Amino acid sequence: MIPRYTRPEMASIWEPQTRFKIWFEIEAHAADALAELGTIPKQAAKTVWEKAKNATFDVARIDEIERETKHDVIAFLTHLAEIVGPDARFVHQGMTSSDVLDTCLNVQLTRAADLLLADLDKVLAALKKRAFEHKMTPTIGRSHGIHAEPVTFGLKLAYAYAEFSRAKERLIAARKEVATCAISGAVGTFAQIDPRVEAHVAKAMGLVPEPISTQVIPRDRHAMYFSTLGVIASSVERLAVEIRHMQRTEVLEAEEFFSEGQKGSSAMPHKRNPVLSENLTGLSRMVRAYVTPALENVVLWHERDISHSSAERMMAPDATVTLDFALVRLAGLIDKLLVYPANMQKNLDRLGGLVHSQRVLLALTQKGASREDAYKLVQRNAMPVWRGEGDFLQLLKKDAEVKKHLSDAEIEEQFDLGYHLKHVDTIFKRVFGES
Amino acid sequence: MIPRYTRPEMASIWEPQTRFKIWFEIEAHAADALAELGTIPKQAAKTVWEKAKNATFDVARIDEIERETKHDVIAFLTHLAEIVGPDARFVHQGMTSSDVLDTCLNVQLTRAADLLLADLDKVLAALKKRAFEHKMTPTIGRSHGIHAEPVTFGLKLAYAYAEFSRAKERLIAARKEVATCAISGAVGTFAQIDPRVEAHVAKAMGLVPEPISTQVIPRDRHAMYFSTLGVIASSVERLAVEIRHMQRTEVLEAEEFFSEGQKGSSAMPHKRNPVLSENLTGLSRMVRAYVTPALENVVLWHERDISHSSAERMMAPDATVTLDFALVRLAGLIDKLLVYPANMQKNLDRLGGLVHSQRVLLALTQKGASREDAYKLVQRNAMPVWRGEGDFLQLLKKDAEVKKHLSDAEIEEQFDLGYHLKHVDTIFKRVFGES
Amino acid sequence: MIPRYTRPEMASIWEPQTRFKIWFEIEAHAADALAELGTIPKQAAKTVWEKAKNATFDVARIDEIERETKHDVIAFLTHLAEIVGPDARFVHQGMTSSDVLDTCLNVQLTRAADLLLADLDKVLAALKKRAFEHKMTPTIGRSHGIHAEPVTFGLKLAYAYAEFSRAKERLIAARKEVATCAISGAVGTFAQIDPRVEAHVAKAMGLVPEPISTQVIPRDRHAMYFSTLGVIASSVERLAVEIRHMQRTEVLEAEEFFSEGQKGSSAMPHKRNPVLSENLTGLSRMVRAYVTPALENVVLWHERDISHSSAERMMAPDATVTLDFALVRLAGLIDKLLVYPANMQKNLDRLGGLVHSQRVLLALTQKGASREDAYKLVQRNAMPVWRGEGDFLQLLKKDAEVKKHLSDAEIEEQFDLGYHLKHVDTIFKRVFGES
Amino acid sequence: MIPRYTRPEMASIWEPQTRFKIWFEIEAHAADALAELGTIPKQAAKTVWEKAKNATFDVARIDEIERETKHDVIAFLTHLAEIVGPDARFVHQGMTSSDVLDTCLNVQLTRAADLLLADLDKVLAALKKRAFEHKMTPTIGRSHGIHAEPVTFGLKLAYAYAEFSRAKERLIAARKEVATCAISGAVGTFAQIDPRVEAHVAKAMGLVPEPISTQVIPRDRHAMYFSTLGVIASSVERLAVEIRHMQRTEVLEAEEFFSEGQKGSSAMPHKRNPVLSENLTGLSRMVRAYVTPALENVVLWHERDISHSSAERMMAPDATVTLDFALVRLAGLIDKLLVYPANMQKNLDRLGGLVHSQRVLLALTQKGASREDAYKLVQRNAMPVWRGEGDFLQLLKKDAEVKKHLSDAEIEEQFDLGYHLKHVDTIFKRVFGES
Repeated sequence: MIPRYTRPEMASIWEPQTRFKIWFEIEAHAADALAELGTIPKQAAKTVWEKAKNATFDVARIDEIERETKHDVIAFLTHLAEIVGPDARFVHQGMTSSDVLDTCLNVQLTRAADLLLADLDKVLAALKKRAFEHKMTPTIGRSHGIHAEPVTFGLKLAYAYAEFSRAKERLIAARKEVATCAISGAVGTFAQIDPRVEAHVAKAMGLVPEPISTQVIPRDRHAMYFSTLGVIASSVERLAVEIRHMQRTEVLEAEEFFSEGQKGSSAMPHKRNPVLSENLTGLSRMVRAYVTPALENVVLWHERDISHSSAERMMAPDATVTLDFALVRLAGLIDKLLVYPANMQKNLDRLGGLVHSQRVLLALTQKGASREDAYKLVQRNAMPVWRGEGDFLQLLKKDAEVKKHLSDAEIEEQFDLGYHLKHVDTIFKRVFGES
Repeated sequence: MIPRYTRPEMASIWEPQTRFKIWFEIEAHAADALAELGTIPKQAAKTVWEKAKNATFDVARIDEIERETKHDVIAFLTHLAEIVGPDARFVHQGMTSSDVLDTCLNVQLTRAADLLLADLDKVLAALKKRAFEHKMTPTIGRSHGIHAEPVTFGLKLAYAYAEFSRAKERLIAARKEVATCAISGAVGTFAQIDPRVEAHVAKAMGLVPEPISTQVIPRDRHAMYFSTLGVIASSVERLAVEIRHMQRTEVLEAEEFFSEGQKGSSAMPHKRNPVLSENLTGLSRMVRAYVTPALENVVLWHERDISHSSAERMMAPDATVTLDFALVRLAGLIDKLLVYPANMQKNLDRLGGLVHSQRVLLALTQKGASREDAYKLVQRNAMPVWRGEGDFLQLLKKDAEVKKHLSDAEIEEQFDLGYHLKHVDTIFKRVFGES
Repeated sequence: MIPRYTRPEMASIWEPQTRFKIWFEIEAHAADALAELGTIPKQAAKTVWEKAKNATFDVARIDEIERETKHDVIAFLTHLAEIVGPDARFVHQGMTSSDVLDTCLNVQLTRAADLLLADLDKVLAALKKRAFEHKMTPTIGRSHGIHAEPVTFGLKLAYAYAEFSRAKERLIAARKEVATCAISGAVGTFAQIDPRVEAHVAKAMGLVPEPISTQVIPRDRHAMYFSTLGVIASSVERLAVEIRHMQRTEVLEAEEFFSEGQKGSSAMPHKRNPVLSENLTGLSRMVRAYVTPALENVVLWHERDISHSSAERMMAPDATVTLDFALVRLAGLIDKLLVYPANMQKNLDRLGGLVHSQRVLLALTQKGASREDAYKLVQRNAMPVWRGEGDFLQLLKKDAEVKKHLSDAEIEEQFDLGYHLKHVDTIFKRVFGES
Repeated sequence: MIPRYTRPEMASIWEPQTRFKIWFEIEAHAADALAELGTIPKQAAKTVWEKAKNATFDVARIDEIERETKHDVIAFLTHLAEIVGPDARFVHQGMTSSDVLDTCLNVQLTRAADLLLADLDKVLAALKKRAFEHKMTPTIGRSHGIHAEPVTFGLKLAYAYAEFSRAKERLIAARKEVATCAISGAVGTFAQIDPRVEAHVAKAMGLVPEPISTQVIPRDRHAMYFSTLGVIASSVERLAVEIRHMQRTEVLEAEEFFSEGQKGSSAMPHKRNPVLSENLTGLSRMVRAYVTPALENVVLWHERDISHSSAERMMAPDATVTLDFALVRLAGLIDKLLVYPANMQKNLDRLGGLVHSQRVLLALTQKGASREDAYKLVQRNAMPVWRGEGDFLQLLKKDAEVKKHLSDAEIEEQFDLGYHLKHVDTIFKRVFGES
């Protein structure tokens, strides 16, 4: 998490002020419930809200107290007492620090998920818009980096749309994983606090009670959350790499938008580099990097150890801020992507008709050639074309053995581009629900 | 995947014979659909089933053909033609190798998931049985490895039960992620094959059609699958580490079952080591290790490259076989775990009553002490006990300032073990739906 | 990298001002060499130094220019021209941005390595001091968490000393890996710049010339660097986990220093938690997390792509700052560690003599028992002791079959603690070069 | 580790028979030393060698014993006793299983390293041969996938040569890391065995004594070893990706050798896919995957736990076998790579002279234009060429402002290809020590 790759909306979730605000809300809601149960005076709970609801917490002061006590929640509570006065002693009754810390972390992670979901919607909207724009723009499909058969540029974006739709479903599930609250005391037994307090706080904070906690909310939930971010980052990288490929000098089927004043290279003024998608590639690596510590964090000792804490203080902001930045960058990149249909057509024509080889193969077998023979016939005519020696259509027409099975007209029929695109509508309907 | 950590049920999913059998089924079901559509003769489809349905494929022969053609699916089809005869030329019409390979992989992964789900049920059953058995067996709860407050051994197992219940839900979702089928041709356009063939094969193989494929089924699905296995492995490790801790010489609250004839150490005959749970720790590391390559595999070039293939050939068996072995081992370990309630009680008593310190703290604040003062009062009486110099209850009774707030009877009241266990039923109901 | 886990010395290496200072030095040294070669006027090179040597670069201004040009080095050069005046046009002649960026990164990484080496020296010094202090303090050695045979606490620290000595050697090698400089132009051919410029800058910056670069310095060097940090972090975690184990309530052989005013738990005032070593465990996970993106960064396209850049902007500071903080924390922790020899002795005595079982086994075989028989004899006397039913020495003396081989005196001889410690001096000499 | 990606030389290192052979040698050498020290009869040591030196160990029998004893070394020793007879009781005196297991693992890892070093020599030889063959074959250098300036194909291979030379140095260091032997007993104190036994066995097995062991040889050594393999794998991937890029249809500057009979695609007979380099990409991911568990394995509890063991049983063979296979495949791939200089020239010419833009920029500044102005002049002439609208040389000659600084002859001078290649010899000398 560095300013360069940070959006303020996401960063603010992780700021100390936000954290203290959430801590306060958890404590104050808990006080309400405790008052309702008669454990503490109702007036005390009311005072807490009144005195601190609109307070700005003094982060420097809290840090100062923490330096002495070496305990963050106690430092906060001490500062809260400075704001609230004597009634502050009724706050945090029967609770343990982790009740506050873990519930707060989950509030932050669900808010982060909400932002990321909005980001995904931006990516999806951009992909959909451009996909329909280029629904029937022919381009070559490639496997192994080698020309295969025609697709459309719209289909390429539809692939990505389907992938990011899955990303969204996964993120909704991941959000649900961490949308839990625990106010269960030092070892999760509710010994000192009634489970109804937890129920009240959970509801007030938009969470559900953790069925069983052990001072901490179990970290398999967070592991699932960060793993999901890692999978989404990989999808970001996939699309970024697609764009980098399309922008290669020899391919040049699309380009990142290049603003006035932008300089591609300090040394080579002509260069227009896919720097945004390369950047997304690197950012994806970072988001993925946090998956492993998140998995390692699951293995806490007994009812809890605090080894997860330092890792989470770094990776929770880092992973969410970085993915947020990446998704928004990706949405803009797709939205403004320069697309070059003429170059796509040029590339499509490059292989002298070889992209139709499979159709010829199929036609031969349908006319009675064995699959093995058909393969050999096609391959012996394809190889010279591949070496730049001749045109596939002409060579086939001159091959006597091919002619035993197919007439000239029948051969030509296999070279129809439209043939490849006849199911684009079907596919669009499957992906977008419309075509 | 080594024999030592392999169960035959899971291994058989990944054997060549199984793979060829699935390939055959995909091809034969596709032939049925093609015949139904009139693309190939109905008799041909029938012959394919008749001749090969009960065939044992000659793995050595297929390998031999592959060595020449350097292409596995062509090698298989060539061998299939040897079994089926001339009608074999109607097989694989309009299909591409990946239609077979990817659909097969997903069949294997869903079958693997089914076995893993059954394994999880075994783990859950063992945990539930032992949890209810020890529902009210008191034991010390620990945070940071330090005694905190009492819990029950049943609660410890209930934590794990809740965690593995989540594991099950996640695995069901992961299974769904990969339960897709693609028969969409060389670049996913259905140019050479009707989408209805895909629909037919999908249904016949227990899958759903992949909405949009690109020769391959997109690898974000598999990334999610293997990430989920990684999260589950971390939960295995967490429970394994709990057991290792409990079996430590100084703790000895539980032990792995130790069979007659077993030798703990070649040098030290008295040793009874938690080797199964240590072993599970290592196996979990391996299952987690496959998450990263699965994430990297997502980023294929254009409509596909084959970089994922070699990685998957290794990690798909390795991850599923290893996790399967680990889960079954874990279920047995829990089922037969030797539990020592007397030792638990001994450990519980070790701290001279310090585990009740929070209750005393709370009682003090309820009687009007400020939180800060109460904390100091408790801490100054706790510290000597911690150093082994005195009993907490007696010290408190002798502390004049404590006595300002609490009578002897009131102090004693805070030392009641039952107080900590009063919500165990509630928690069990939340976890198991019953108590 | 968050303030909480950051030391200013390391952080300052990664500050913009430091980076710009290094950029300037690279450019100015290059100008010297270019002037020496007659490519640019000598006066120009001199002016550059004079005008900018003591300049504080205006980070905000450079950021502003970069927002327009979207290119960081051009932004810097533009700002430099504002400081230097017209002679600035001779700066960066024939160079490419990466010449500056990559050489700068390597300067930063070598400086970071120097700090980390100093940190390791602190860790080693603390370990050595405490190891000699407790060279002959007996404590139980444990395998599988189970009591094995006696060692000394000094030996435990000597293990760690040897491990961190290896860490130091590895870090020296890793530093050497990245101590290279490239001033080789847009694709590394020196087309526009004489290799002697590189030689001059390398020497001036304390680096050696990269034998062959491709616009960028190859990232396998950095992968090795960050992998080495990951290995060192794992050693940090190992020692941290040892301390966490020793501080467990049931073990309590050592404790982290607990300052006045520190609060262990907001709820449980008696608790003294090993929070520093738990913290180190988490920090280690983070340092390790950066290994994977560093490995992925190696795979750049052709002569370079910029995917590594965003990842490195995050991980280079994050990994070095976090490891620096962890090592210094570890050194302090060891230096001030509270060691409890009495508790060590208590634990040593706990197993009723079972720790001597191997000696008895050996004595039996030396007296003619087969290994198999000896093992059985020892095990049948060990098992009751293990269950708390009897004393090992007494049981052996009562076992008629044992007595066939060993007299009472011979049995007693096997229970001598000194026997186990006779080679401590030898080992210390091997580890420390002295004993 | 699957047969498909396994070479027998490496696989044999990890076979049970090899392992038992090494165990035997360790035990027998230890017996020699024990006999020399007078601990056991000299005749016994002699008998051990005589009876078992040429024995083939019965793996099934050992497995059978292990199923009962659940201890692999005891099972082996029991079987050894069956071969050696009564004198077998003098074997393993004072040793612990790990003395045998860890020393054996390190023997295996050093042997694996020796094979990998030989593989690297093959890769280096192939790279050198082809590098010199194409030392002066011009080809376009690319940054960001975009044409930059000319390099030679020989330089591309020289980059790789330099990288794999570093790989070799690193592997030599990694081999040294694990070339240690420990015969130090149950907790590493040499309580039951004289350190001279260790010295003797170490020397006999080609290792050095581990300065301090703790029943086990410390796992930071192995972490460094596997991390090094991970870095090497990344270098393999980098070169593989370079080849995949060059074989792309639009680039086609090189191709993997395509044997007679090979089939590129079951559906598209014309295709020649870079399947070997794609395969290497995937294999590299797997070798990298083992880095993380190797790092996690460092953190053993106290004097040892056995969590590393299961992970190592899988990853040690998997990582070494896979990297061995990958390196040999890579060497063959480079050796037989089809190189197309004519296509390289065609690509070089594609950008209408834009690759010379930096030279023009430099010439302009040398003639007095400010860097800013020169940049603008070059960019405004480059952009139309980039869009396919005109030739860079002609446009520059027509630009009046350019002409203010440069004559036609001076402009033409900047378009000389030789200019870019003048330092190729220098670079070759730096990389290969000759040119």
